[in-house]
Amino acid sequence: MEEMQEQELQEKIRKLIKEKKLNELHSALDAINSADFPSLFEELEEDEILIIYRLLTKEKAAEVFAELDSDVQKKLINMFTDKELKAVINELFMDDTVDLIEEMPSSVVKRILKNVGVQDRKVINELLNYPEDSAGSIMTTEFIEFKENMTIQDGFEKIRKTGLKKETVYYAYVVDKSRKLLGLVDVKEMLIADRDKSITEIMEENPISVLTTEDQENVAKMFDKYNYIAMPVVDTENRLVGIVTIDDAIDVIQDENTEDFEKMAALIPNEETYFKTSVFKHAKNRILWLLALMLSSTFTGAIIQKYESAFAAVPILVSFIPMIMGTGGNCGSQASTLVIRGLALDEIKISNIFKVIWKEIRVALVIGITLALVTALRIYFQYGNEYADNIINLTLVVGMTLVATSIISQLVGGILPILAKKLKLDPAIMAAPLISTIVDMCSNLVFFKFATMIFKL
Amino acid sequence: MEEMQEQELQEKIRKLIKEKKLNELHSALDAINSADFPSLFEELEEDEILIIYRLLTKEKAAEVFAELDSDVQKKLINMFTDKELKAVINELFMDDTVDLIEEMPSSVVKRILKNVGVQDRKVINELLNYPEDSAGSIMTTEFIEFKENMTIQDGFEKIRKTGLKKETVYYAYVVDKSRKLLGLVDVKEMLIADRDKSITEIMEENPISVLTTEDQENVAKMFDKYNYIAMPVVDTENRLVGIVTIDDAIDVIQDENTEDFEKMAALIPNEETYFKTSVFKHAKNRILWLLALMLSSTFTGAIIQKYESAFAAVPILVSFIPMIMGTGGNCGSQASTLVIRGLALDEIKISNIFKVIWKEIRVALVIGITLALVTALRIYFQYGNEYADNIINLTLVVGMTLVATSIISQLVGGILPILAKKLKLDPAIMAAPLISTIVDMCSNLVFFKFATMIFKL
Repeated sequence: MEEMQEQELQEKIRKLIKEKKLNELHSALDAINSADFPSLFEELEEDEILIIYRLLTKEKAAEVFAELDSDVQKKLINMFTDKELKAVINELFMDDTVDLIEEMPSSVVKRILKNVGVQDRKVINELLNYPEDSAGSIMTTEFIEFKENMTIQDGFEKIRKTGLKKETVYYAYVVDKSRKLLGLVDVKEMLIADRDKSITEIMEENPISVLTTEDQENVAKMFDKYNYIAMPVVDTENRLVGIVTIDDAIDVIQDENTEDFEKMAALIPNEETYFKTSVFKHAKNRILWLLALMLSSTFTGAIIQKYESAFAAVPILVSFIPMIMGTGGNCGSQASTLVIRGLALDEIKISNIFKVIWKEIRVALVIGITLALVTALRIYFQYGNEYADNIINLTLVVGMTLVATSIISQLVGGILPILAKKLKLDPAIMAAPLISTIVDMCSNLVFFKFATMIFKL
Repeated sequence: MEEMQEQELQEKIRKLIKEKKLNELHSALDAINSADFPSLFEELEEDEILIIYRLLTKEKAAEVFAELDSDVQKKLINMFTDKELKAVINELFMDDTVDLIEEMPSSVVKRILKNVGVQDRKVINELLNYPEDSAGSIMTTEFIEFKENMTIQDGFEKIRKTGLKKETVYYAYVVDKSRKLLGLVDVKEMLIADRDKSITEIMEENPISVLTTEDQENVAKMFDKYNYIAMPVVDTENRLVGIVTIDDAIDVIQDENTEDFEKMAALIPNEETYFKTSVFKHAKNRILWLLALMLSSTFTGAIIQKYESAFAAVPILVSFIPMIMGTGGNCGSQASTLVIRGLALDEIKISNIFKVIWKEIRVALVIGITLALVTALRIYFQYGNEYADNIINLTLVVGMTLVATSIISQLVGGILPILAKKLKLDPAIMAAPLISTIVDMCSNLVFFKFATMIFKL
């Protein structure tokens, strides 16, 4: 919803609450999509939220509840009667209940667990035990299960009876007596086939599935690759224990991308939004890398200090330091970004490291020489009169440094992410900030080496 | 598929081709998922690919074809007979055909258009005319359409008759006589409801839809928000013209993220993979920003040059330049990354600019003071003896510069992406490279200002 529309809607709803026109309010709420409630609630008072919430139908209330931010959920739960809490939890899918429990303080968790049945409590505890970011931790246990001896007609009966309580009905899964996964049935195939046929005739045998321990990032990638609507999750015995639905896969893709953006900017990844994160949390997430990089940059400082006599003799050298550092950092960051993204999308594999090196060397030569030529011209026009005696030497030093810096920085940027992956680290940490700091040392060293050599200092 | 398994599979398939065991080959191919063929084909010869391709069933052949890279598609088309080409195109969904046409050279396009029916050619031409990256350009025209007067039973009949040729059957759309979109019917609701009911009783009225001209990025975001499997696309008269399916939305999400990663690293976005891009294309995508940033950094050089007398008097100052530049760049990059990502995910709005400023100032104070204190200690231990007379002045200059640099860089990093969005530019260009270059100027200026002031130079 656009910002303007949203404001109008809020005004209207506030007015209806104030004037106690609950009937009108009811129908106004009916026209709002569940996914639009969170932003509507943001600007309303707690008691207004509760009034609205109590006007929703049971199903919509649960849908809306699942969409809310955890702090609004917490506020609502604290205002709920036990009966209301039970009603919401009963309507939530298992994976949403588990998400909720993971976000709530222990007092609220106790109230929630008190209000679910014994069987559900068992499932919740199991789901809570899967490692963070695993398929098990994001799956839901509400899927449709067929037996081998069922006909398509039986399948339809089962969907009709239980479908409303399942997170998806578009796929159903055929399991044997020991709950081992035998096949996948797409409701599309059911709709087109003869109703007397056995369910096994239309099932896809040995469907792609993932283990409960599989990393959620890989699960999301498989959705992208295989165009599934849901992915079956099995235990080590190939018994079906849950499914991951595509809406959760999209959330995982976005979360993993956000994590990569954050790591690549030398931030400690944070699951909260920008404004929900406190000033001190923000500072904490940023300071560690900043300190590490700041202290590393003292090595570059030491290199420069070593050549004090060089820039004492030719002070103009100092004014090229920002250009050389900047260019090295940018070249390295370009190369590392391409390689990190290529690795994330499986377009680059660890075994491609020599292909990357060969490509980067050639690209670096083209880039380095171009930059050197442009800078040579710039130096000639800017300093041609002032430094007439030294102009050729200066151009040579800066030009050679630029070529060398391009090559070094693009190689460092291209190689380090692959090495990180080989060492089972996240390639995303080998991005601009770390690469720049490493390249700064090399480029300054090269610069002053060339300078002392050519100026004979 | 893992790299090892893939190699084994290739060996096996090559052997089967060589030994002409086509029956065994046939069943080996049956077990491979369509999405796994592209990587299998990568290492095979052209004639081997053709043999395999001809062994696939018509449906699977089309599925596999749609998954292939455009250069493999081109090779295959060149080896196809007209009849084979026609068969593939007939099985492809409209959006895949349009994607294919967009990638092929004109000679191949002519052959493709010659082999589709008149009606299809008209639709293809229409689809080709939608602006790049619009909902119209990624939608497909194969959706299931219901009329208002149909019962659920009629709906099932329609799905049974036409479902196989539609890209999804999970959602169908109800339209009136002038093809205006009236409602959305989820097949889940159909399966659970009474078959004699009117289709309008279970439809969701006024479903969320997008215009053909809507930016694909916004369409993808709506999938994420509303948890749809497909999104109806309408023209300005609200007439239903197509649907975007969720698998295409995931591709858009990944493409848009890749584009942001590239822009944030000062790269010109490129739709080809790393290895598919030639050395000169790589150089071209990188050089423009590098040149612009390199030339901008001469301003920082000029600032430093202006203070030649300052570092001639206190040469140790020069060795702090990398640390100050690095820290400024990193602080700016952290802030800008958080804000760019927040804007992309709609967690930050343009109207939040003052909230961002207020947050960044406080975070910058915490960070700047911490960095200054750590550096003060470092300077004291490293230079305490050597520069005993000047140690307090040096500490003061560097410490104050670090605090000022944190504040400036985080403000620049926080504000520029929001301003870019306000000016309808992509916030992602206001990332590390550009921010660093701007911040470098400010931080060096502040540094030398403080130095001349405190050292009384």
